[in-house]
Amino acid sequence: MTEFEAFAVELAREAAGVTLPFFRGDYAEENKAGPNSTGVGAFDPVTQADKDAEAAIRRLIAARYPDHGVIGEEYGEDRPDAEHVWILDPIDGTRAFISGLPLWTTLIGLRVAGEPSVGAISQPYIGELFLGGPSGAVLMSRGQTKPIRTRACERLTDAVISTTDPEIFTGSELGAWTQVRAAARLARYGCDAYAYAMVAAGRMDLVAESSLKLWDWSALIPVVEAAGGEVTNWRGEPVDGTGQILAVGDVRIREQALVTLKRAAL
Amino acid sequence: MTEFEAFAVELAREAAGVTLPFFRGDYAEENKAGPNSTGVGAFDPVTQADKDAEAAIRRLIAARYPDHGVIGEEYGEDRPDAEHVWILDPIDGTRAFISGLPLWTTLIGLRVAGEPSVGAISQPYIGELFLGGPSGAVLMSRGQTKPIRTRACERLTDAVISTTDPEIFTGSELGAWTQVRAAARLARYGCDAYAYAMVAAGRMDLVAESSLKLWDWSALIPVVEAAGGEVTNWRGEPVDGTGQILAVGDVRIREQALVTLKRAAL
Repeated sequence: MTEFEAFAVELAREAAGVTLPFFRGDYAEENKAGPNSTGVGAFDPVTQADKDAEAAIRRLIAARYPDHGVIGEEYGEDRPDAEHVWILDPIDGTRAFISGLPLWTTLIGLRVAGEPSVGAISQPYIGELFLGGPSGAVLMSRGQTKPIRTRACERLTDAVISTTDPEIFTGSELGAWTQVRAAARLARYGCDAYAYAMVAAGRMDLVAESSLKLWDWSALIPVVEAAGGEVTNWRGEPVDGTGQILAVGDVRIREQALVTLKRAAL
Repeated sequence: MTEFEAFAVELAREAAGVTLPFFRGDYAEENKAGPNSTGVGAFDPVTQADKDAEAAIRRLIAARYPDHGVIGEEYGEDRPDAEHVWILDPIDGTRAFISGLPLWTTLIGLRVAGEPSVGAISQPYIGELFLGGPSGAVLMSRGQTKPIRTRACERLTDAVISTTDPEIFTGSELGAWTQVRAAARLARYGCDAYAYAMVAAGRMDLVAESSLKLWDWSALIPVVEAAGGEVTNWRGEPVDGTGQILAVGDVRIREQALVTLKRAAL
């Protein structure tokens, strides 16, 4: 494990210490007392967990690598043009978190000279950390570290695929997704970054999403690619600012999906 | 904990010993060699895990309570008219299981004189067992047993709701669901029985599903109801053979949902 891979694990553990007490925490009990306690306007534990976790990660980075840049969902950009830039989403999958479902993750990515280098997808309630980087891809879980690999999948008709929520697609994106879904063996929704971890671990074959921000996708690329897969935009090119992401475990199904997805590519 | 509650826990543990080695197991590696390895026609680990787990549970029941009845998804009915009948779904959430997602569960229900009495919703990979019965509702997880309660939710507009897959709804059911979803705060898909556990644990407020079989819903009722919620059909009556299920954590939102759901009730 490289120095930065090990540091990504350290950051994920720090974040877990902040997020876990909020997950299914007792705040709901306290809130019950208020007349509007369960409404959107009530105390928002996810926002608080997000902010506290990102702040904790930023403190560690600033202490260890004061010249590194940081871009996070909650606290914006510091030195975004640095050689090394950490990209953070302290809680990816807010809706899962709110609903008590243990499929939210903490995402930590490192770009070096503008290229994705290290990624960590951490689900601390289950106790899983999917790590990808120069040393390869591994699943660290409950004291064990095991290599992970994407699996062979020659045809889209054999593929298990996923997207987080078809409702975020535009009309043309939804049309494209619907065709891909119709061709695939099985589709799952609502997994957020966890779906990419399943591609890396050889349990899913394809994830297609749109409207993703830099902190949503930066950590995913090293995990999927170190495990043998590839991540592109909906034109089959390196991921850019369009927010359209296509991850495949086996590149042979990418062209089959792109036939449709390209028509909705930005 | 009553004798039968403790036995349900024992059965769930026995099932876990069978299902866990299949979950994300190495069979995929072996399958890769074959030309149609990832296709639907290939070795189906879920079916095998289902069958083996149900057989293991049935052996324990036959040894301990030879006069009890058993109804299971895989091996049919034995003494379905007995005073005590165990109702089994060894793997609820087959699609999650196939996709590597740890939201599938083993469902074990006990009916006494035709009434739901004990229910267990077990997710052994995470290490969670939601148990409901005469002693109340608890979450047993990693050596700890804690009581669980549904939460207050006065208005549907505040509710976190779930259904497994809108695609299984008929046209009128989908219309009704869409209206309920539009009113709710947040909707999640793809959770199968785990959603009912989240209602019992006070993290979701409502689950509406259709086409459920006896073994899909029998275990859920004691868990949700012992935690303070209620489970009915889409007319607000006791669950029957229609397969339409409505679970709420707070009965105040049931009538609000039924206004719509009743129109699609069988």
